[in-house]
Amino acid sequence: MTSPAITVITGGVGGAKFVEGLYHSVNPQSLCVIPNIGDDDQFHGLWVSPDVDTLVYTLSEHVNRDTGWGMAGDTFATQEQLALLGQEVWMNLGDKDLATHIVRTLRLHRGESPSDVAAHLARSLGLECQLMLPTDSTLQTRVHTEQGELSLEEYFVKHRCAPQVTQVRYRGAENAQITVAAEAAIREADCVFFAPSNPLLSIAPTLEVNRVRQTLHSTTAKRIAISPLVGGKAVKGPTCEVMRACGFEANVFGIAEFYRGLIDTLVIDQKDAEHAHALRKLGLEVVVLVTLMDDKPSRIAFAAQVLSSLDLAPALEAVS
Amino acid sequence: MTSPAITVITGGVGGAKFVEGLYHSVNPQSLCVIPNIGDDDQFHGLWVSPDVDTLVYTLSEHVNRDTGWGMAGDTFATQEQLALLGQEVWMNLGDKDLATHIVRTLRLHRGESPSDVAAHLARSLGLECQLMLPTDSTLQTRVHTEQGELSLEEYFVKHRCAPQVTQVRYRGAENAQITVAAEAAIREADCVFFAPSNPLLSIAPTLEVNRVRQTLHSTTAKRIAISPLVGGKAVKGPTCEVMRACGFEANVFGIAEFYRGLIDTLVIDQKDAEHAHALRKLGLEVVVLVTLMDDKPSRIAFAAQVLSSLDLAPALEAVS
Repeated sequence: MTSPAITVITGGVGGAKFVEGLYHSVNPQSLCVIPNIGDDDQFHGLWVSPDVDTLVYTLSEHVNRDTGWGMAGDTFATQEQLALLGQEVWMNLGDKDLATHIVRTLRLHRGESPSDVAAHLARSLGLECQLMLPTDSTLQTRVHTEQGELSLEEYFVKHRCAPQVTQVRYRGAENAQITVAAEAAIREADCVFFAPSNPLLSIAPTLEVNRVRQTLHSTTAKRIAISPLVGGKAVKGPTCEVMRACGFEANVFGIAEFYRGLIDTLVIDQKDAEHAHALRKLGLEVVVLVTLMDDKPSRIAFAAQVLSSLDLAPALEAVS
Repeated sequence: MTSPAITVITGGVGGAKFVEGLYHSVNPQSLCVIPNIGDDDQFHGLWVSPDVDTLVYTLSEHVNRDTGWGMAGDTFATQEQLALLGQEVWMNLGDKDLATHIVRTLRLHRGESPSDVAAHLARSLGLECQLMLPTDSTLQTRVHTEQGELSLEEYFVKHRCAPQVTQVRYRGAENAQITVAAEAAIREADCVFFAPSNPLLSIAPTLEVNRVRQTLHSTTAKRIAISPLVGGKAVKGPTCEVMRACGFEANVFGIAEFYRGLIDTLVIDQKDAEHAHALRKLGLEVVVLVTLMDDKPSRIAFAAQVLSSLDLAPALEAVS
């Protein structure tokens, strides 16, 4: 039996936990990962794709396991020197990590598409699954706060999510076209997952790309979201604050509303199990599991449970 | 008495030895350094100015004293990672050093002039003398060899000076205009030095800039070259081979010919003292000294001897 074709739409650190579990639970060649590009930005003139890099580093075993981002054992000699030369260095970029951004910037300046550059970097670091950008256009998540409009990384890293969010916008979305690869990956998959990422900050940028929602509506794939909430709270980060700011309830009903029409199944944590019945009444299939996945074994175990609960496990050729 | 206004036209490692001696023998505020820009090149999409950086690192005490280039105590984490990502890494760029190139590239892309960028970097690293580029145009030394045409760093670093040189050209020289600052520094100096650098590879690129020769002809400054030869041989590097390839004798007479009309005085090593009489017959003042300067004290001592021999010493306000 062949491995089912799985496509996963994901953000960075949080989503990468589930994607890593999938990566080691299925044949990685049948796995397509569509990362968030809404936090891409330039630092010191270099193009950085924080969520893409977090995914690639995590899946290729290069990630710093203590932070969940950056490269293991990295040093910060260049960044310390950049500060001496007058650069703002609130965005932590390690020496090894900088090689990624230098090569990305070089190849983009040469005229390669962002998709091709991401694929080159992923391949160079040993990634065995497909990594496909949702779009080759520039699309930037803009966080409107009481302290003004911020980029995602300004909000997240520079201001540590402190400013009160008033709304979130996706600059460039109206002109962003889905890539051929991402469209095919959604259309032809056996199942499409939404990783347990911040819906507004990490998933919405991909959904706002032209034809992404339409392709999700028309695909015959089973469509499943993993709730990022545990007992109505985020494991980490400002998920609830941002959901409220954008008009969603900060609970599993808000998650269900965010994904309305885009999913068939919602996986929720057992601490939210009391809401399963009400969610089913909304027309969703509901799977209740322990969704915390702190280390690699628990990520693999969780992904296997999710696949099993969807009757996908028998079709799998697990490689790990 | 005020310090004499000194301008020095120089290449990288070899020339920097004399410039360092001058820097610590005079008031650095009255010292203008005009570096070679003919070996500027892009690596991994970043603009690198090897000779400019060597000078700045040397004068600001950041240089790696073992190599004469690069920064002291630097590491190579980014470069090792760049190699893993498929980049050619024959040009050694350390992690701290890379910060210089990242900031240079960022500022050039923003539209700052190369002169302004060089001044910013020099100031940030603590340089107290004036650093002024000969031109803000791109001018690249092209070494024609039996293995084809090479950039200066390809010839020097990648091919370790092994290919037989047939000629040297300065691409872009015809359109390169002298900077206002460099022209004033040559015109208004009390003396203009040529550091003991490779004439064809390190000094000629500056001389080929429009109006540089003309300004050297018309200045009232005393004009002095330090021969890079000791006993008819280069201290290091392919000076003699390149002089021969370009039609010059590989000895102090070749040096005198190279600088004909541009200098009043030639400082030669005592191992070339036998030629002093013949050089004087060519109309040059000749100063014979021990020109080797391996460490900082010997560089300062040499510079002081040169200044003293030119009757410049009494006017000096030495700062070290």
